[in-house]
Amino acid sequence: MSTTTAPSSEAASAAPVRFETRPEAYRHWSFQVEGPVARLGMQVSEHEGLRSDYELKLNSYDLSVDIELADVTRRLRFEHPGVRTLVVESSVPRIFCAGANIHMLGSSTHGFKVNFCKFTNETRLYLEDMAAECGIRTLAALNGTCAGGGYELALACDEIVLQDDGNTAVSLPEVPLLGVLPGTGGLTRLVDKRKVRRDLADVFSTVAEGIKGRRAEQWNLVDKVVPSSRFAEFVTERAQELAQGDGPRGRTANAEGVVLEPLGGTYEQGGVTHRNVTLAIDGRVGTITIKGPDAPPPADPAAARANANDLWTLRTARELDDVLLDLRFNRPDVGTLILKTEGDAAQVLAWDAFLAEHAEDDWFVFEILATWKRVLKRVDLSARSLFALIEPGSCFAGTLFDLTLACDRSYMLDDPDHPVSIELSALNRGPLPMSNGLTRLETRFLGAPDTLAAALAHEGPWDARDAEDAGVVTISPDDIDWEDEVRIAIEERASLSPDALTGMEANIRFAGPETLETKIFGRLSAWQNWIFQRPNAVGEQGALTLYGRPERPVYDWSRT
Amino acid sequence: MSTTTAPSSEAASAAPVRFETRPEAYRHWSFQVEGPVARLGMQVSEHEGLRSDYELKLNSYDLSVDIELADVTRRLRFEHPGVRTLVVESSVPRIFCAGANIHMLGSSTHGFKVNFCKFTNETRLYLEDMAAECGIRTLAALNGTCAGGGYELALACDEIVLQDDGNTAVSLPEVPLLGVLPGTGGLTRLVDKRKVRRDLADVFSTVAEGIKGRRAEQWNLVDKVVPSSRFAEFVTERAQELAQGDGPRGRTANAEGVVLEPLGGTYEQGGVTHRNVTLAIDGRVGTITIKGPDAPPPADPAAARANANDLWTLRTARELDDVLLDLRFNRPDVGTLILKTEGDAAQVLAWDAFLAEHAEDDWFVFEILATWKRVLKRVDLSARSLFALIEPGSCFAGTLFDLTLACDRSYMLDDPDHPVSIELSALNRGPLPMSNGLTRLETRFLGAPDTLAAALAHEGPWDARDAEDAGVVTISPDDIDWEDEVRIAIEERASLSPDALTGMEANIRFAGPETLETKIFGRLSAWQNWIFQRPNAVGEQGALTLYGRPERPVYDWSRT
Repeated sequence: MSTTTAPSSEAASAAPVRFETRPEAYRHWSFQVEGPVARLGMQVSEHEGLRSDYELKLNSYDLSVDIELADVTRRLRFEHPGVRTLVVESSVPRIFCAGANIHMLGSSTHGFKVNFCKFTNETRLYLEDMAAECGIRTLAALNGTCAGGGYELALACDEIVLQDDGNTAVSLPEVPLLGVLPGTGGLTRLVDKRKVRRDLADVFSTVAEGIKGRRAEQWNLVDKVVPSSRFAEFVTERAQELAQGDGPRGRTANAEGVVLEPLGGTYEQGGVTHRNVTLAIDGRVGTITIKGPDAPPPADPAAARANANDLWTLRTARELDDVLLDLRFNRPDVGTLILKTEGDAAQVLAWDAFLAEHAEDDWFVFEILATWKRVLKRVDLSARSLFALIEPGSCFAGTLFDLTLACDRSYMLDDPDHPVSIELSALNRGPLPMSNGLTRLETRFLGAPDTLAAALAHEGPWDARDAEDAGVVTISPDDIDWEDEVRIAIEERASLSPDALTGMEANIRFAGPETLETKIFGRLSAWQNWIFQRPNAVGEQGALTLYGRPERPVYDWSRT
Repeated sequence: MSTTTAPSSEAASAAPVRFETRPEAYRHWSFQVEGPVARLGMQVSEHEGLRSDYELKLNSYDLSVDIELADVTRRLRFEHPGVRTLVVESSVPRIFCAGANIHMLGSSTHGFKVNFCKFTNETRLYLEDMAAECGIRTLAALNGTCAGGGYELALACDEIVLQDDGNTAVSLPEVPLLGVLPGTGGLTRLVDKRKVRRDLADVFSTVAEGIKGRRAEQWNLVDKVVPSSRFAEFVTERAQELAQGDGPRGRTANAEGVVLEPLGGTYEQGGVTHRNVTLAIDGRVGTITIKGPDAPPPADPAAARANANDLWTLRTARELDDVLLDLRFNRPDVGTLILKTEGDAAQVLAWDAFLAEHAEDDWFVFEILATWKRVLKRVDLSARSLFALIEPGSCFAGTLFDLTLACDRSYMLDDPDHPVSIELSALNRGPLPMSNGLTRLETRFLGAPDTLAAALAHEGPWDARDAEDAGVVTISPDDIDWEDEVRIAIEERASLSPDALTGMEANIRFAGPETLETKIFGRLSAWQNWIFQRPNAVGEQGALTLYGRPERPVYDWSRT
């Protein structure tokens, strides 16, 4: 409709955010591995946040802290396959973590707040993935104040141990002090993961000072309360207990890790260039192009490990992830994404076959698959419209075909003179579930089990017309219509209200069952986003705005 | 925290909204019953909306239209037990329904928009309840344009028949034309009820002109497309087909209905007075008091039917429902509700036993139970904080005890000199599920199956201390602490941000499984509420604001 542009209230912060880091460069965490136990100590550097207009006091965090945490969750899995337990603790006396920095939140744009919360939510889920996927148990050792996002971090761990010193409490003070929600999974994990009784959750979430000691254990807010005098010892012993035995798929004490090297992409105003993934921006439309592999997969997992940083599949997944994050934080105006691939579909299928063959037995190959799973979920959860263009020269097979299923629509050229095909691999048939627990094909055909069965049973490639008939692409225009149809679709999409599209996509992408994950992103985040727009929180006299100042917030008391 | 008040942007409209009506007073619908088929014809009276500053053209609706629809869904069940099919159609040529009136939406406060959508959503669910609960099948007969909320009304019917005249289309133009969502269940029912493929749902929801003819059937947007020449005849035949046989629990052709008479409450600034339910307002705190029965239940269902409008249980449910709606629409500042009861718990249990004994076999007794089910859901979904006070003289047993489980907290006095008790009935053990499909006890004890089993197995009353130990009340202060503890809890609650409380309660009240209902109220509504705050929709140059004017909307293009 409109091609006019309103002045943006959502300008990205001056310096672009980059997501690559490495342990030697961490400013906010200590990270040590001793045999099967890794210890991650929070020690936020007050003056080394993402911006300089706030101080990260009391182990409060901003995005720079979470970028390092996300990095740890990756590296621990790839670089330390012998680790069986991760202890999450604080390296600062008497304080575990005070949660997200309020001054940072109060001074950020709405768009930044929303994307910051989404990223922290994804990272908390990566912590939770580790037990199920790698057999790495996470233990939150709370030896000091644990408030808001700090307790939400603990909630994402498998076990929570709380020091009983008459003082140390867990708390979610967001509602009483800030007029916002514990939106990094807090409310959802309280009642759905830890299954805290709703009335107790209600009391807990409105008591700013939190709950300590025995009552925290009785209400199931923590798993164990331990006297100060025995706390350190207990944590060490419990970490060792959780670390007994070998992990799955060859995660033994002797297993050798793989160091993830920097991707080293080039970031410009016009886009991003990685080796296998590029982003090219034209106005408010971005085109992501993925190059297929130009060589067959390695002979075996050992050969793969030896060449880990150049492996097409792992590198491509990491590059795509980086591009998605760059778009979310640095390019908010690029609302429509076109997805293309270039290469040999047979090679993609060969790489998929390699992953499928070895993922069950080899921890490293499994990690590549798990990386794809997370990146594909990041696509599903990205608030951008996605159209896949399946054209001659593309290689939308297997994993890359699943990307088209993550798109809102797919267009496939039907031109007998320039034939193009798509094809499934084993990886479309199970190991890459969405947040709702179903594969993208299962979600797509929720109401058509026969169509699903036919698609899954189909062997070999589909041409355009068969693909449309099988329901695995949206539409297959012929060569006469193609250019106009695609151009108009993109132009129309790019003309619609960005907010309405975000809400629409969040609702129609996730049909079927709901899980802890979908509840966090669908229900909790949507309510938090609403509150992040409300004057009672972010107005001049709102609670978030005034936090830390002498004035009291002034509320419009209307309930909606 | 704050006791200061911001100027309210959410003032209720000048005239209070009343929810009682009757067919003779309908302004917007024709309603005819012929044997087993009822026909409900939409014929919105342009100048008889709730306010006079907009015209309800093209069968567009406002709350006054939906109040009548809600009334029909009730009366059809009580007054016409012989009806087996409800045809929902238009009495206006060439137009079925243009959806919610945009000028009404554009000029309403945020709070009104949100509560309007919630009420319409509840009403759509009542349409859906009819098939499962009463065996009344609903058939949407689309003989003209069916857009936005009009199509959402059709989506709530069991079957949709579309006239194939080369012109009549179904559409959801909210995203492309208004910059908001099809938020009356539209997006959710598309992908979760009708299981429309997500990419087709994406196309459909962005094409303002909609989809017609064969394609609408192919995409499962409608069940059947019928040529104009055969349309009327087809609808009549299909309605008769669906009306074959008797309904459940004695819903036969000869069954005699029960006419619901007006409740005739008194509405004042200080509250509402009904016979069994009163609301007394003190500042921003409202106290709802329910009187228990002062007589035993009738001897049998026939006696109950003969005295339907004076039956304690049915009347109390209807009165409570009316008070909840009055609070939502006419008293937005009353954010905290205290729930009390007065009466004889043994009598309440006797009435519950009557319902439990006859609900399986008698359609009328079942309708009373179903009314309670819906009213209790309305409590769960009301964006107000609810505390139950269980004091001497109260009668929180059975159905009324379930009300305490719908509250955010319950306080029970522990005073041996003035003993008080609570007790379950059969109605707490199954027939009153929440939107998530579980009973309130099951939801409460999601993480404690043994505690649940013990509570369900418990016979007889609990005193205060045992109730707290059993987890069926939140806390049981003794007589020394009671007054201060309750007073401080209420004062604290009433001081918190109304928005944060709304978001918090929406997240912790509904642990456990998700259903179509919880998805609509949790996910879809939360996103719609967010969009209803966004300048791209409601700002001076937003799409909703400018609809119908020559200017184009001006968007801030940032994606969040």
